[in-house]
Parts: sequence; C-alpha cells; structure tokens
Amino acid sequence: MPDRSLIDGILAGDKRALARAITIVERSDPAARDLLHGVSPHVGGSYTVGITGPPGAGKSTLVDRIAADLRTRGWNGSAQPPKVGILAADPTSPFTGGAILADRVRMQRHYRDPGVYIRSMATRGSQGGLPRSTRDAMKLLDVYGTDVTIVETVGVGQAELDIMGLADTVIVAVVPEGGDAMQAMKAGLMEIADLFVVNKADRPGADAVVRDISAVISWDTRPREWVPRVLSTRALEGAGIDKLVDSIGEHKASSEKSGLLARRRSERRKQEMFEIVKSRVDREAQHIVASNHELSNCVHQVESGALDPHTAAQKVLQAILGAKPQSS
Amino acid sequence: MPDRSLIDGILAGDKRALARAITIVERSDPAARDLLHGVSPHVGGSYTVGITGPPGAGKSTLVDRIAADLRTRGWNGSAQPPKVGILAADPTSPFTGGAILADRVRMQRHYRDPGVYIRSMATRGSQGGLPRSTRDAMKLLDVYGTDVTIVETVGVGQAELDIMGLADTVIVAVVPEGGDAMQAMKAGLMEIADLFVVNKADRPGADAVVRDISAVISWDTRPREWVPRVLSTRALEGAGIDKLVDSIGEHKASSEKSGLLARRRSERRKQEMFEIVKSRVDREAQHIVASNHELSNCVHQVESGALDPHTAAQKVLQAILGAKPQSS
Repeated sequence: MPDRSLIDGILAGDKRALARAITIVERSDPAARDLLHGVSPHVGGSYTVGITGPPGAGKSTLVDRIAADLRTRGWNGSAQPPKVGILAADPTSPFTGGAILADRVRMQRHYRDPGVYIRSMATRGSQGGLPRSTRDAMKLLDVYGTDVTIVETVGVGQAELDIMGLADTVIVAVVPEGGDAMQAMKAGLMEIADLFVVNKADRPGADAVVRDISAVISWDTRPREWVPRVLSTRALEGAGIDKLVDSIGEHKASSEKSGLLARRRSERRKQEMFEIVKSRVDREAQHIVASNHELSNCVHQVESGALDPHTAAQKVLQAILGAKPQSS
Repeated sequence: MPDRSLIDGILAGDKRALARAITIVERSDPAARDLLHGVSPHVGGSYTVGITGPPGAGKSTLVDRIAADLRTRGWNGSAQPPKVGILAADPTSPFTGGAILADRVRMQRHYRDPGVYIRSMATRGSQGGLPRSTRDAMKLLDVYGTDVTIVETVGVGQAELDIMGLADTVIVAVVPEGGDAMQAMKAGLMEIADLFVVNKADRPGADAVVRDISAVISWDTRPREWVPRVLSTRALEGAGIDKLVDSIGEHKASSEKSGLLARRRSERRKQEMFEIVKSRVDREAQHIVASNHELSNCVHQVESGALDPHTAAQKVLQAILGAKPQSS
C-alpha cells in the first residue's frame, strides 16, 4: 500500500516529503513501487529539460544560471515565477558511498529560494542504475508541482542517452577545447540534442566549434520538425543564458505545435513500462534461481566454467517462462 | 545450428571468419546466439585488458602503444610475440550510422601486422547495447587465439562500468587538465581501476594530479589484494609505456596468486548468464505484448496516458510469468 500521507505531502508541496520520497525511489524497493504507483495519477504538468555533455563542460553552472533566469524572467508567459526542480545525477564516489557535492556548492544561492528544489542523486550501484531512479525522481518533482524540471547528467552511456533523449528539451553542452564537440558526436550526443551549447565561449576556438557543429547539423538533410540550434554561453558570467532559456521556450512551442512533444512523452511512458517489466522479471529470475536447487547448481557450474552461460541461461529461461520461449 | 565452418575458421585463426563473426554478434540475432553457444567450449586463454576514461584522455594512442610494446617485448615470458586483439567500442555516429574511424587511423601501423587484430565496434542502437556485443566480441577474439585482448571504451555509464570492471586488468586514463581526475572519480572510474594512467604527462599539473590520485587511493584503507598504481605516460611519444605494460603483467601475476583473477572471471560468467536471461526475457515480453490483443491495448493506453506504466507492467508481468510474481 502506498503511504498516503507521504503522497499528500508531496502533492501539498512539502519539500521534506519530496526529499523522503526521492530517497525511497533511489533504493528502488517495494515501497518505491507502491509510491510510484500511488503518484501516477498526479503526474503531468512539468516541462523537463535534460542537460548533458562531457565532464567539465560546465553543466552545473549552466543549470544554476538557467534556474536563476527562469526565476527572474518567468516561464511560459506566466506572471508567477515558475517552480523549478533540479536533479543532478551524480555517479556515486566509490570511497564515500555518497554523491560528491563539490560543484553543487555553486548552487547554494538557490538554497534560500523556496521556488527551487535541488537534489543530487547518488545512483551508482543502486538497483536499476542511474536512469531508473532519475526518471522516478523526475516524476516525484512533477507531482510536487515543479513547472520546469532540469536534469543534469554526465552524457555518455547507452541507457542514459536513451533516457535523456526523451526529455522534452535536450541541451548538450561542450567546451571549445580538447576536441570536445567531436567527442560528443562520437558519444552519440549529437543525435539527441535539441540545443547545442558551446560554453566557456570566451576561450580560443569557440567560434570555430560553433561553426563545426552547425556544419555537422546541416549535413543531416533528413526532414525534421526541429533543426538543432547552436548557442554560445559563458555560464560563469551569465552571458548567453537569456537566449538559451528563450530557445528552450521556442523549442517547447515548436514541439507542442508539431506533435513532437506528445510523441516523446508517449514514447517515454511506453519505455518506462517495459523497463518496469524488465527490472521485475530480473528480480523474479534471481528469486527463481536462488530458490531452485537445480538452477542454483547451474549458476555454480557457470561460475566454475563447467557450464557455458548460454546453456545455463536457457534452463533459467524455461523455469521463468514455464515453457519453451515462443519468440526465438 | 551454429555455422561449423565459421567456428572452424575462427579457431584456425582466419581473420575474415573472425570479422564476419563479430558482425553477427553486433546484430545480436538468433545466429549470434548459435554462434556464441558454438564457440563457448573454446573460450579460455586470452588475458583481457580494459582501458577506459573520459573523452580526450588519449585512450586510442595508449592502446596503440601498448599493443606495439607487447609485440616488441613479448608477453608472459614467452619468446613468441603475443597475438593481440583490440576492440574499440565506439558509439555510432548519428549521421553516418557507422563508427567514426578518425582516431582509428592512428592505429594503421598495425594493419600490416598479422599478429594484431583491430576492430571498431559500431554499437549504438544495437539490441542489447554497448556492453553485450563488446563482451561477445571479446569472446570471439579469445577463440580466435589472441593472447591479450584490449578493450577501449568511453568510460561513463553504469552498464559499461559493470562490464569494464570485470576485465582482468582495468586501466583508467586521464589527462592533467580540466579536473579530469576529479571527474573520473565522480563517474565511478576510481572504483574499477587497477592501474591509473595520467597521460600527456608533460602538460602542466601532471605531477599534482598523480599526487592527488595517489592520495585518494591511500584514503581507502579497506584491506585489498591489489592497491591501484598511478603511472605517468606520454603515449604520443611512447614514454612510460614499458612501465605500464610491466604493471599489467605484475597485476596479472598478483591477481593469479591471490585468486582475484579467478573470482573476476567467475563473476563475469555469472553476470553474462543473467544478461542473456534478461535480454531473452525482454524479447519474449515484446513478443507476448505484440501477439496479445489485450496487452497491445494496454501499451496504447500507456502511450496515451490513460493507463499508468506500473499497472500496465503488472499485467504484462502476469502474462509472461503465467502467475503472480513470487518475489514481491
């Protein structure tokens, strides 16, 4: 059973209830499932902005500045400053067991602003990994009532790209030096970017990088509803942030009109469903193996090298599915 | 049925058979399963070295130099130069649909050396993603007869870390500037490193980075069988490579003696088994949903937002498992 008072707390905009709920989804235990199930009917309104890019691109500072700009200049034509949620998906430090907060410190200016909720997610090693609990936390922020949810991640890794690619607007940040833009392309980031930001644009080579990225974008002649934009920022000084936030708004308007936004969101829901299935079946498989003497024996034989993983997997599959799989 | 002539070709050391086989596992179709099943009894001898780190750390050049050093100075006390396999797991470019080969060009010197096999893996978007097909290709290289298999990846992303962490020796490469070492820690790379390489060590700050990493390593006072080493290289000039290769050999000797190597390999086999199960069940789930009218309807409702993903997932789970899951 979901904890009604916790859900009511989140719905009422209680930061402590929200924090507690995110901690629960980070653990991804049965309580998390009940909680997510319970909040499901209330998910809806928040606009999600994903920001990703190689380490050192200044993503945290960009997020900080975007949030400040939203709070100052407003969002979506409303007179009220928007409620902003920030999720920084930090892989966990191996030695401390917790998220490294070093560059979160920069965000402290928001800590006194009740309209901004910031959370570092300590995700490494958690059941289901980075993408799962980040997405669940995004939902909780939505239910809590944020108008805009910004998710910052280190942008390499298949699963992460898949998730990020389904944010309502995806920003890819790079810096001029070190062949960063080229590396970002190699890492598949180009494919998911709605907005490209060349940050630290006062450094040498920035203009060339903007030109290079624009050129690569222009090579792609497939018909598309949105042509990715390339912007320059100096996030530390706050330069270029207003244009960036305006571009987020324009991408939003464009993708609402073209139906892209609706398609992304429906794909996101479908993907989520299949991921829940996967993670539950995975747990089920572990359970079946642990409670079945013959299968446990199989695993030991795989570990010792006496049985090959494919043959063993076949036996486990038959035990899970109850019969010969139909799809092969 | 596995293709015997293909398997025999790989076992006989035929490069074209190997190349064809890797292409098959990249596609991850039923033929791949049969092939992997067929080669399973022949997997065994190759020593695997994983090299990872942030983009721009010079990983390709390091791999190039390590291979050259192995071919020149030998391996494992043998008079014969070792057969070396190199897998560069490149995420696919979104626009070309293939791996970007730019920095592979540097490796061309090996192309005329029959003792070195190099392959760029175009993995993005493939069924099962990066880790799965990379691991399968490692097996094929093993069966082909490589003495050492070097796998190079961009080192961020949970699944990738999990795989890399199970290589026989894991090298994490960073460069002095840009807070690279700090970022590597944040990305969980510290946890999996057996050897830390500060590459481009002629740049300012290199000594400080070596000191910093060493300090962090020394903070970890847990008992352990191998204390990670920190090495400096200038891979472009070939400096420090001999020491790096010697350290790989020393890590190998140490982990053979301590039993760490055997444990990593048995964990790797077990993990592989569960991943085969996962990916097969996933395919089965897709199949069941597609062929069941009621479940297909559920998916449409999830897409439209009329049904929450958790409720729909529960229905799919029941259809797959034939009954209420036992583990919850």
